[in-house]
Amino acid sequence: MTIETTDLSELDFPTDLEAAPLSIGDDVADLLFREARTVNTFADDDVPDSAVRAAYDLVRWGPTAMNTVPLRLLLVRTPEARTRLAAHMNEGNRDRVLAAPLTIVAAADTNFHHHLPLLAPHAVGMVDRFEGDAGSRTGLARQSGLIQVGYLITGLRAAGLHVGAMGGFDAAGIDAEFFAENGWQSLLVLNVGQPAVEDATRPRAERLAFTDVARTV
Amino acid sequence: MTIETTDLSELDFPTDLEAAPLSIGDDVADLLFREARTVNTFADDDVPDSAVRAAYDLVRWGPTAMNTVPLRLLLVRTPEARTRLAAHMNEGNRDRVLAAPLTIVAAADTNFHHHLPLLAPHAVGMVDRFEGDAGSRTGLARQSGLIQVGYLITGLRAAGLHVGAMGGFDAAGIDAEFFAENGWQSLLVLNVGQPAVEDATRPRAERLAFTDVARTV
Repeated sequence: MTIETTDLSELDFPTDLEAAPLSIGDDVADLLFREARTVNTFADDDVPDSAVRAAYDLVRWGPTAMNTVPLRLLLVRTPEARTRLAAHMNEGNRDRVLAAPLTIVAAADTNFHHHLPLLAPHAVGMVDRFEGDAGSRTGLARQSGLIQVGYLITGLRAAGLHVGAMGGFDAAGIDAEFFAENGWQSLLVLNVGQPAVEDATRPRAERLAFTDVARTV
Repeated sequence: MTIETTDLSELDFPTDLEAAPLSIGDDVADLLFREARTVNTFADDDVPDSAVRAAYDLVRWGPTAMNTVPLRLLLVRTPEARTRLAAHMNEGNRDRVLAAPLTIVAAADTNFHHHLPLLAPHAVGMVDRFEGDAGSRTGLARQSGLIQVGYLITGLRAAGLHVGAMGGFDAAGIDAEFFAENGWQSLLVLNVGQPAVEDATRPRAERLAFTDVARTV
């Protein structure tokens, strides 16, 4: 196997290599990011709607394209609904969905434009244009919906919950199973709850450093 | 214009309509989300690399698919680079890019797989598979990269910065201009800095409520 080095010759590294202090405390930085870990095995504790609502009520203020706010949440609770969802998960994720106290399908609403008169009254002329352009609607809904997934994972942690995010599933299968009538498209499946006492997470994996990912022009 | 109501007859509303308390203080919740606002007009204050690095060092811990961490950042600083970038922005965003103290092109690295030996040593067999499947690489890089954009906007605010995110640009043009050699794909363009004293933001727009976006099965 040959690993080729990306040519970044045109781009300079940032030269200021110290990190400035954050405006949030270490406890919050740890809770939301630095000590937060993907959880694979959860305790049995119930996850009430009120905790998910607290997370959503926080992160709904995050910016989206034209304020379209296209993220939607399917809370999968009943044993029957879990079984229907698990059938569309990749094999390694099936038992996790069946065992988690709550699983949320994060989805993008391709019919977000019906809400524009409320959300973007200055751009209400876009409703008709979006109505005739399903491709643009899907692209925008998925793009802003994924950015909102980033807010949501942060928000669930801010609400004291732990998250195990899974991208391994048959999205078309989930969409046909749950969203055939409403135009939602599944983006990511999140197990949510409190970590089990033992073996809840894998060992912490590495990350890329600022100088690995940032270039200056 | 007819606005059709989405058929959600199969899905129930959540019944627990109170929000639980957050695990973070009101000041942090306000800083990161509730009082944070998209800024269109910035003060002249310089934005050092160290502040962007503080944001990145925080949010790099957020989860991505297979720990691929595909988000990349192009910090656009020189007048010449600003002009090159502005040429690919939609008209309404051009002057904003030219005037902001710092503009960041958030991009997805479609060659993220070269870092898998470091990031995902348990999945190093994926390097060869990704090498031969540019379509899968692009899809994964963009999906996880957009989720990381959600983390990044939150992290910039945690670092005391304000953000004006813009999706209106010619992505292929930016990619040809700056990323022809390295396989990055532009996702979102962010102006970053401190808000101007006057007219920095638009009036706060509405958001959808939890009961508008969440369903339970």
